Amino acid sequence: MSIVVVGTVAFDKIETPFDKTDKILGGAGTYISLAASHFAENINLVSVIGGDFPDEYLSIFRKHKINIEGLQVKPEGKSFYWSGRYHSDMNSRDTLVTELNVLADFEPILPESYQSPEFLVLGNLTPRVQMQVLDQLKKRPHLIVMDTMNFWMDTAWDDLMKVIARVDVLTVNDGEARQLTGEYSLVKAAQKILTMGPKFLVIKKGEHGALLFNKESVFFAPALPLEEVFDPTGAGDTFAGGFIGHLARTKDISFDNLKNAIIYGSAMASFAVEKFGTEGLIGLTQEIIDERVRLFVDLVQFDISLVNN
Amino acid sequence: MSIVVVGTVAFDKIETPFDKTDKILGGAGTYISLAASHFAENINLVSVIGGDFPDEYLSIFRKHKINIEGLQVKPEGKSFYWSGRYHSDMNSRDTLVTELNVLADFEPILPESYQSPEFLVLGNLTPRVQMQVLDQLKKRPHLIVMDTMNFWMDTAWDDLMKVIARVDVLTVNDGEARQLTGEYSLVKAAQKILTMGPKFLVIKKGEHGALLFNKESVFFAPALPLEEVFDPTGAGDTFAGGFIGHLARTKDISFDNLKNAIIYGSAMASFAVEKFGTEGLIGLTQEIIDERVRLFVDLVQFDISLVNN
Repeated sequence: MSIVVVGTVAFDKIETPFDKTDKILGGAGTYISLAASHFAENINLVSVIGGDFPDEYLSIFRKHKINIEGLQVKPEGKSFYWSGRYHSDMNSRDTLVTELNVLADFEPILPESYQSPEFLVLGNLTPRVQMQVLDQLKKRPHLIVMDTMNFWMDTAWDDLMKVIARVDVLTVNDGEARQLTGEYSLVKAAQKILTMGPKFLVIKKGEHGALLFNKESVFFAPALPLEEVFDPTGAGDTFAGGFIGHLARTKDISFDNLKNAIIYGSAMASFAVEKFGTEGLIGLTQEIIDERVRLFVDLVQFDISLVNN
Repeated sequence: MSIVVVGTVAFDKIETPFDKTDKILGGAGTYISLAASHFAENINLVSVIGGDFPDEYLSIFRKHKINIEGLQVKPEGKSFYWSGRYHSDMNSRDTLVTELNVLADFEPILPESYQSPEFLVLGNLTPRVQMQVLDQLKKRPHLIVMDTMNFWMDTAWDDLMKVIARVDVLTVNDGEARQLTGEYSLVKAAQKILTMGPKFLVIKKGEHGALLFNKESVFFAPALPLEEVFDPTGAGDTFAGGFIGHLARTKDISFDNLKNAIIYGSAMASFAVEKFGTEGLIGLTQEIIDERVRLFVDLVQFDISLVNN
C-alpha cells in the first residue's frame, strides 16, 4: 500500500480556557500523516516548510516512518504559522495569527516515487495546489480523499468545483456542506454534493459525530463522549488520517469498510483532542487503538429483535 | 402494564419558515401519551383543560385508548395556549404567546385507578405539581421518568431538586444538563446528576441525537437524518412516550433494554417532526414503526473484527 498526503506542516500556537502552548508542531499534513502512520506504511508527505523548522519535528515524521522526500524546505523562508484561541465551549475559536510564509507561493512537487499512490489525501489547501497534485499523478489512485473549507468557497469557487469533480471522497463540516449547496438539510446537501463528482461524502459535525453518505446509504458515527476535550486542533485532519489509514491497510473501499474507516477515524480524533497538538497521537499502539474502537462499539450497539428482520 | 402520564394538554399555534398552523392539539401530556399508545395499553393521562377544548381532540385520546379519567375539565376556564415561531435552522424558536390559563392553578388529582401505576412519566411541569403526583402514589412504580426544563432551574430550584431526588430517569437537553451541574462536559454533568437521585439520565440533543447514562455506561442514539424537518414541536415528549411505551411493553428496565427504548423513542420522534403537531403520530402501525427502527439499525451498525474481542 502507499498513501500520498498533501497538507500543511506548520507551527501552531494554541490557547484554550485551561492552558496555552508556545509554537508547537501542527498542520493538516502533519495530523493526517501521523494518524495514518498507525495503520499503514509507505506514507508520503507533500508539503513545504521554512528554514526555521526544527529537526526535532522532522524526526517525529521519521520516527513514524513517514517519507518526507516531498517535504520542500525553503531555507530562506519561514514555516506557515497559525495561532488561535478556543472559546469556553471548545467548539468555536478565534484565529489570532495566520502567517502563510512559505505556503504563500507553494508549488507542490511529487517526487517520482510519489506519482502512482494507491491512496491520496488532499488536505485543506488552496484548490489550485490540490489540482496541481492531481495533475502530477501517473495513474488514478484507488481512492482520492479531499478536505476543504468555507474560505475556498468564498474565494476560489470555480477552482474548488473543478477539484471536487475529480475526487472520490469529500470531507467537509456541516456548515460547509450547507454553504456548498444552499441546502440546510444535510440529507439534501449530501444528495447535491454527490452529483458534483464524489462517490462518497463525509460530513464532520465535531462533538456531534460524523455522517458518511453515498447515493444509496447513510452511516452515522458519534464522537466519543469525553470527560475533557483538551484541544480540538487537528481533530478533523486526524479523523481523515485514521480513515485513509484503515482503508489503505485493508485495501477495501466498499461502503461497509468505509463505515469501519469512519469509526477508526473517530477513534483517532478522540485521542487527538485529549492532549495539546499532536501529543495525543504519539505513543499509540494497535492495542490502545482497538481498545478505543471497542468503546465506540459499546456506545452505539443495541440489540432489537424485529419481526421480518 | 399501566402507565400514568402527567403533562400539559394544550393548544399550540406554530409558525415555521415553511408554513403555519391555527390553534392545534399540543402539550407534553398529549405527545407522551399518543406516542406511548403505539406500544402499550392502559395509559392514564393526568392533566387539565378548559371549556374551550374541542370534543374532536378528546376523541383522539379515546381512539388511542388513552384513559382520560384524570383529565380535569374546568368549564369556565380556557386551555393552556402556547404559540411559537421557529427560526430557519428549525432548532431554535421564539415563544410568541404563553397563556397558562387553567394550568396556572392546576392541582393534579390521581383517580383511584391511577394510584399504583407500573410506570410513571412526569412531563415538564412545575416541580410542585410533579411532587403532588408522587405524593398520591400508593406504591412505587417500576420506573419513574421525569422531564424538566431550564425555566424551573431558574425559578424553582429547591422544589426541582426534591423531585429529581425521587425519580429513576431524568430527561433534559444538553444545555439543561450543563445548567443543572455547572459542568460543560456532558460526561461530567451526567456523573453529577446521577448523584442527585436518578439511576439513569437521558440527555436529548435534538437533531444530534440522545445520550443515555447510568453510573457505569453510556449509550448514544443518533437522530435520523431527515430530508425535511417540518415541525420539531413535541419531539422530546414524543421521544419520552416511545421510550416509556417500549419499557412498559417489555417490562424490562435493564440498561440494555433502556438502550432499545431510546431507539424506539428516537424513531417516534422522527415521525413527530415530519408533520405539524401530533399529525405524524396518527395512523402509525407496528410495521411502520419497526421499519423506521430498521433505519436506525442501518444508520449505526458496523462490523469491525477486533482481536481479543
